[in-house]
Amino acid sequence: MYELHFGVPMTGGILCTLNTRHDSAMLSVLLGHSEAKAIFVDYQLLELGQGALRLLAKDRANLPHLIILSEPGESLSAENNYENLLRTANPQFTIKWPLDECDPISLNYTSGTTSRPKGVIYTHRGAYLNAIASVLLNDITTMPVYLWTVPMFHCNGWCLIWGVAAQGGTNVCLRNVSAKAIFNGIYLHKVTHMGGAPTVLNMIINAPLSEQKSLPGKVTVATGAAPPPPKVLFQMENLGFHVIHSYGLTETYGPATVCTWKPDWDALPLEDRAKLKSRQGLQHLCIEELDVKDSVTMKSVPADGKSIGEVMFRGNTVMGGYYKDIDETNKAFAGGWYRSGDLAVRQADGYIKLKDRAKDIIISGGENISTIEVESVLYNHPAVLEAAVVGRPDEYWGETPCAFVKLKDGAYANSEEIITFCRAKLPHYMAPRTVIFEELPKTSTGKVQKFVLREKAKALGTVFRSGGSKL
Amino acid sequence: MYELHFGVPMTGGILCTLNTRHDSAMLSVLLGHSEAKAIFVDYQLLELGQGALRLLAKDRANLPHLIILSEPGESLSAENNYENLLRTANPQFTIKWPLDECDPISLNYTSGTTSRPKGVIYTHRGAYLNAIASVLLNDITTMPVYLWTVPMFHCNGWCLIWGVAAQGGTNVCLRNVSAKAIFNGIYLHKVTHMGGAPTVLNMIINAPLSEQKSLPGKVTVATGAAPPPPKVLFQMENLGFHVIHSYGLTETYGPATVCTWKPDWDALPLEDRAKLKSRQGLQHLCIEELDVKDSVTMKSVPADGKSIGEVMFRGNTVMGGYYKDIDETNKAFAGGWYRSGDLAVRQADGYIKLKDRAKDIIISGGENISTIEVESVLYNHPAVLEAAVVGRPDEYWGETPCAFVKLKDGAYANSEEIITFCRAKLPHYMAPRTVIFEELPKTSTGKVQKFVLREKAKALGTVFRSGGSKL
Repeated sequence: MYELHFGVPMTGGILCTLNTRHDSAMLSVLLGHSEAKAIFVDYQLLELGQGALRLLAKDRANLPHLIILSEPGESLSAENNYENLLRTANPQFTIKWPLDECDPISLNYTSGTTSRPKGVIYTHRGAYLNAIASVLLNDITTMPVYLWTVPMFHCNGWCLIWGVAAQGGTNVCLRNVSAKAIFNGIYLHKVTHMGGAPTVLNMIINAPLSEQKSLPGKVTVATGAAPPPPKVLFQMENLGFHVIHSYGLTETYGPATVCTWKPDWDALPLEDRAKLKSRQGLQHLCIEELDVKDSVTMKSVPADGKSIGEVMFRGNTVMGGYYKDIDETNKAFAGGWYRSGDLAVRQADGYIKLKDRAKDIIISGGENISTIEVESVLYNHPAVLEAAVVGRPDEYWGETPCAFVKLKDGAYANSEEIITFCRAKLPHYMAPRTVIFEELPKTSTGKVQKFVLREKAKALGTVFRSGGSKL
Repeated sequence: MYELHFGVPMTGGILCTLNTRHDSAMLSVLLGHSEAKAIFVDYQLLELGQGALRLLAKDRANLPHLIILSEPGESLSAENNYENLLRTANPQFTIKWPLDECDPISLNYTSGTTSRPKGVIYTHRGAYLNAIASVLLNDITTMPVYLWTVPMFHCNGWCLIWGVAAQGGTNVCLRNVSAKAIFNGIYLHKVTHMGGAPTVLNMIINAPLSEQKSLPGKVTVATGAAPPPPKVLFQMENLGFHVIHSYGLTETYGPATVCTWKPDWDALPLEDRAKLKSRQGLQHLCIEELDVKDSVTMKSVPADGKSIGEVMFRGNTVMGGYYKDIDETNKAFAGGWYRSGDLAVRQADGYIKLKDRAKDIIISGGENISTIEVESVLYNHPAVLEAAVVGRPDEYWGETPCAFVKLKDGAYANSEEIITFCRAKLPHYMAPRTVIFEELPKTSTGKVQKFVLREKAKALGTVFRSGGSKL
């Protein structure tokens, strides 16, 4: 995957990295939509790839070439073996440079929460700039050692596949991401930088002591993809990690903002620091503009920490558009800005703070409830490993918060305890009315699939007789 | 100067920073050539600026506005006082963004070794990219503390005026650059980064012990502007500085290459490391191509460390052209590359090493002599503070090396000792035949003015009877 990020563009080709957790059916849809000419498949995923090609054969005469990345040490006889093809290739091959810097370099399908695939187009210009921005916002200096827990198929590894190479770095890859593999990798290879969604950080801080290893030096961890609960940031820093919080979307080539750290904040208590760091921050150095706007009037919201608006972006590191989907493209850019669908406030110091995805926010009795805020409180409960909050239909209030909680191994708490805990720390109306204990459904990038939870909350039925509760 | 690097472009204006060591006559030529609309003058240079305007008044009806940067604490009554103008300005002023990213942001006159001013045009796009490249090649992470010894009028401070701001840095400025002021500044402000020509490094390493202070932390020093003798690099590292060697020209917005350090080299003896680091290295991340080419055939020289060619550049961070001088522009870009006029070899690992300015190289009996190499040896002599070598006319050999040497305070050496010292370390024909002890003439950026020394060497007369020497 890493090599191909250079090899494919050098042939004039366009990358289209596919999520390794898709099934053959989804893969065949994406191969068809992208009009792929070749597919490179790892030996562990070969059946999945072959299955996708069989399905694709029903609609299409010319199938993509299948090239297999074989197990190390395996015989290289197969004609369509990647290493074999490299070996027999012409070393004098002339690089095919893009004719225009705005030519596409990559097509990234957003993780499949909808049936209709949305292929985000990255240009050479945008990818170059976001690779540089990623290097800068991660404080990656020359010759880093980078540990990959962020999947490389996701936003081209937040553009750091190119960024780490630009800085002459060493890449440490894991076949399976686990706390043990992470601590071992850091220790063995003297890792200086890594990245991971809050779920990965959560995995690290909850690792049994027997799997933890002391850090060999300064390890900088970029987190993003979902808003990190302050508690998680706090515990990571306690373990000695230096956490950088960044935010973006597939449509912004991965990272678009960074919560730039101010030296003045060093003197604050660790919890206050974690709270400051849980904000999404400011636009990074290579994007033109970040704003929080009223979705209808397109007016910027005041920097009061209260007025909620939609996060919008403009600049070189905003996608070229959705492939073969002019309607969705126009919708995303209506008003001349890329509309992220994320709701946020701007605080007095200019930093933005996400409140929710527009579709995730709970409206209860006319009040907006940020599920992120409720989740942040849940993460402070000593028995809670992971938590996600969605709206559950409510006869009187419209909807009320319903928490899905996974407890730590060996820990115990019941609904009432959780609700009481939340009521002590939140306005009454924001505390969950319902608590369900179970494993959380997630995308391959570690984001909780709230649409699944919403369905579950709905299936629980409407809450009646809640009108009598004191608010 | 720092503020104006943001304020002037925000008005849609173009910067034109003038060398503070020019006289009024030169300044009036540049004000005329650039068609300056306003001139900002520091109170210490007011007479110089007023003198320039008086001279300009002879040719021009509309003189540029004179705005005075007054002494701190001085009364602000004057109408044309900078602070006063800021105070009375409209805070709602709308920024005038460039219409095109290739619009000019800055006009930089190359330091005056010729009478005809050459105004190098920087574009917004190029300045943005070189600011980013400068940040990256200097390993400047967020919130640096930068000590200015590089004059800000020189290539807009190697583009770091913008670069340090981009990283949220603190700027430490010195009115007068001295070893004492540098050590005090580093100590007092916990400086993390600085830059300086080899002359500045030489000033640091030769500072009396009473003026030296121990470093408060890691201090990264970028050097460039002239090839640093390995001895100087060696001694800087010995003092605890981390030196980064970069190379470029006014026409490449300052830095264009960097001698990227490889971790493998850490294990080498300090002297070998200094030799490796004295190379100009590889192109930086934001310039498209660096090559060493035969000036006539435009073919790349082989990477053999021996074949000399001209250093050429291509890319976004190469100047737009010389202002009002299409002939010089065409000459500089003949063949589709920017021709630096610097001669270099490419070594086996791809790194380039400068041999000389095309006009400085000595041709003796048909052999090329790199004056940089001879100077590197001279710097190893314990009594030598500074050295520069030029060709002196020679009846038999055409020219032979003539060394100009400044000795350290209290140190002594005569010509014969210096020549013997060089002959022990260089092929016989490369060692100086003549040694002159005196102060070296320099430009304001610390470059030795070799054209002055060449005149002096010529004035010494032709060397006769040298044909009998053993070579």
